Amino acid sequence: MGKSLYAGVDLGGTSMSAVIANSRGKVLGESDTATDKSSWRVTVDQVIEQIERAAKDAGIKPSKLEAIGVGAPGAADPKTGVVHRAPNLGWKDVPLGEILSEHFGVPIAIGNDVQVAIMGEHAFGAAEGHSRAVGIWVGTGVGGGLIVDGELDRGHRGAAGEIGHMVLDENGPECPCGRKGCAEAYSSRTSMERDVKALISSGKKSVIPALMKEKKKTRMTSSVMERALEADDAVMKQVLARAQHHLGLLAGNIVNLYDPEVIVIGGGVAARLGESFVAPIRETARTRFLKPDPKGKISITHATLGDYSGALGATVLAKKHA
Amino acid sequence: MGKSLYAGVDLGGTSMSAVIANSRGKVLGESDTATDKSSWRVTVDQVIEQIERAAKDAGIKPSKLEAIGVGAPGAADPKTGVVHRAPNLGWKDVPLGEILSEHFGVPIAIGNDVQVAIMGEHAFGAAEGHSRAVGIWVGTGVGGGLIVDGELDRGHRGAAGEIGHMVLDENGPECPCGRKGCAEAYSSRTSMERDVKALISSGKKSVIPALMKEKKKTRMTSSVMERALEADDAVMKQVLARAQHHLGLLAGNIVNLYDPEVIVIGGGVAARLGESFVAPIRETARTRFLKPDPKGKISITHATLGDYSGALGATVLAKKHA
Repeated sequence: MGKSLYAGVDLGGTSMSAVIANSRGKVLGESDTATDKSSWRVTVDQVIEQIERAAKDAGIKPSKLEAIGVGAPGAADPKTGVVHRAPNLGWKDVPLGEILSEHFGVPIAIGNDVQVAIMGEHAFGAAEGHSRAVGIWVGTGVGGGLIVDGELDRGHRGAAGEIGHMVLDENGPECPCGRKGCAEAYSSRTSMERDVKALISSGKKSVIPALMKEKKKTRMTSSVMERALEADDAVMKQVLARAQHHLGLLAGNIVNLYDPEVIVIGGGVAARLGESFVAPIRETARTRFLKPDPKGKISITHATLGDYSGALGATVLAKKHA
Repeated sequence: MGKSLYAGVDLGGTSMSAVIANSRGKVLGESDTATDKSSWRVTVDQVIEQIERAAKDAGIKPSKLEAIGVGAPGAADPKTGVVHRAPNLGWKDVPLGEILSEHFGVPIAIGNDVQVAIMGEHAFGAAEGHSRAVGIWVGTGVGGGLIVDGELDRGHRGAAGEIGHMVLDENGPECPCGRKGCAEAYSSRTSMERDVKALISSGKKSVIPALMKEKKKTRMTSSVMERALEADDAVMKQVLARAQHHLGLLAGNIVNLYDPEVIVIGGGVAARLGESFVAPIRETARTRFLKPDPKGKISITHATLGDYSGALGATVLAKKHA
């Protein structure tokens, strides 16, 4: 079956990408575009188009694919292929699996984008060969997922891995989930942007507004963050350190509860900043390990597939579950 | 094999108990005593004596046992039967398994007391029939354990389930582990006793000192706590509520990360106070569930085997792993 090919789609609220890959994770074709959210049907048609373009790029007909996988930003039912809630897309109960299946005539698997990306890192990236892995994905929010023996450990209700909402201080900052002091409320890109704005409002100087203007960004993207750090921006450094500190507490709590072999930190910020993002997180986490780890049996590291984590993970999902 | 009999020992720093039980958890004989810690060898001889007394109580010869299990208060190596660290016993590297095996000539299994008690509750108590369970054990410290498909989920290094050291507020009270703001630092019996003393020192009135004197206790035992609550003691109620609140945050974090079917809360305080101890914990935990649980698919409940959780759990350990 060395010639079996899969399509994988990383469907995000800002952009989407599709790849065609073999079962060893070799990318043979790809395509990406900005997500058009004018209606759910328009977005689904974009997904179809990206798969077709990636297949063309790989020189194959979509009907020859073994299966297609999609990672969607929300709660997807892996059995029915329905995306129940995807706030970043404005979706509610979209039958994505059924539509793709009818269009392409091949098996379809739909999963949560973060969980799918962690599957990708487990199959071909930072967690390859590790039987017990946890992913911490830092982006608009903070998501996560657990992997045991190469399969997602979904928990009793399919809700395991929601580590972004671990409370680290119940009197902490407000979280988009409506509670206070969740890890996400300290450490998401959105939370970091909030903290940057607050420091600037309080009179601190920062290059960040100028960088955002220069790059024509309405949000503090990871590329803006990288540039601000290169400019040795004090506000950026202070805000990033706070986020990293709380990600370290989160990772320490995960180790004490779940004792994984590897924690992979992914998402846009981690992809761009790499080890310099992860090092302080690792340092804080290790101070919280109840069982000391002098030999470094537990690895805390950044994702290595970069922009491909999600789309390649979706090909793994396709292979395993379509 | 309906007639196979097992011995199980719950070895604690204050007292120890042994039972003889069949594979369905029916207790046929028992014995218990205060733990003599004058030397490790004296304590081990007590363990031997308790097993012999329980066997006599059941009317069988110890040599007829299928296996013997022991839950010890510390880190035990399940393969070698060595108890590496058991601070409450003053033990370091005691070859308990080997000594018992030589004495009785039957297979021996040694485990951690809390994990063993959770196995007991899973086999015959509050978690019976649930495939994914977490135990939170409140005593001198706060311990825990994870169970999946009837087996302990030990994690990569055998350190999973150390939930007592989940940080809930890094600026919180000091924990015996040397860190700050761990769940244990708010919610163990020891931490509650610290809080009671602090309130009394600050001038609050409480019946607790008189109750301890009356019962000739140097510590605030769970029976003292129960009596204080019966007397509507304001200090006891305030301190208990704080402990329960933080156990609720802990349970909520466990649900968001691990998504178990049931969380069993055990140990002396839970055994004595039962549902009145657990109800406020459940209420707080449910406010933290990221995925709502309107149908109550997740149960948060108290252990039901009472004083037998540990010793019966040790018979389960014996049956499965000796």
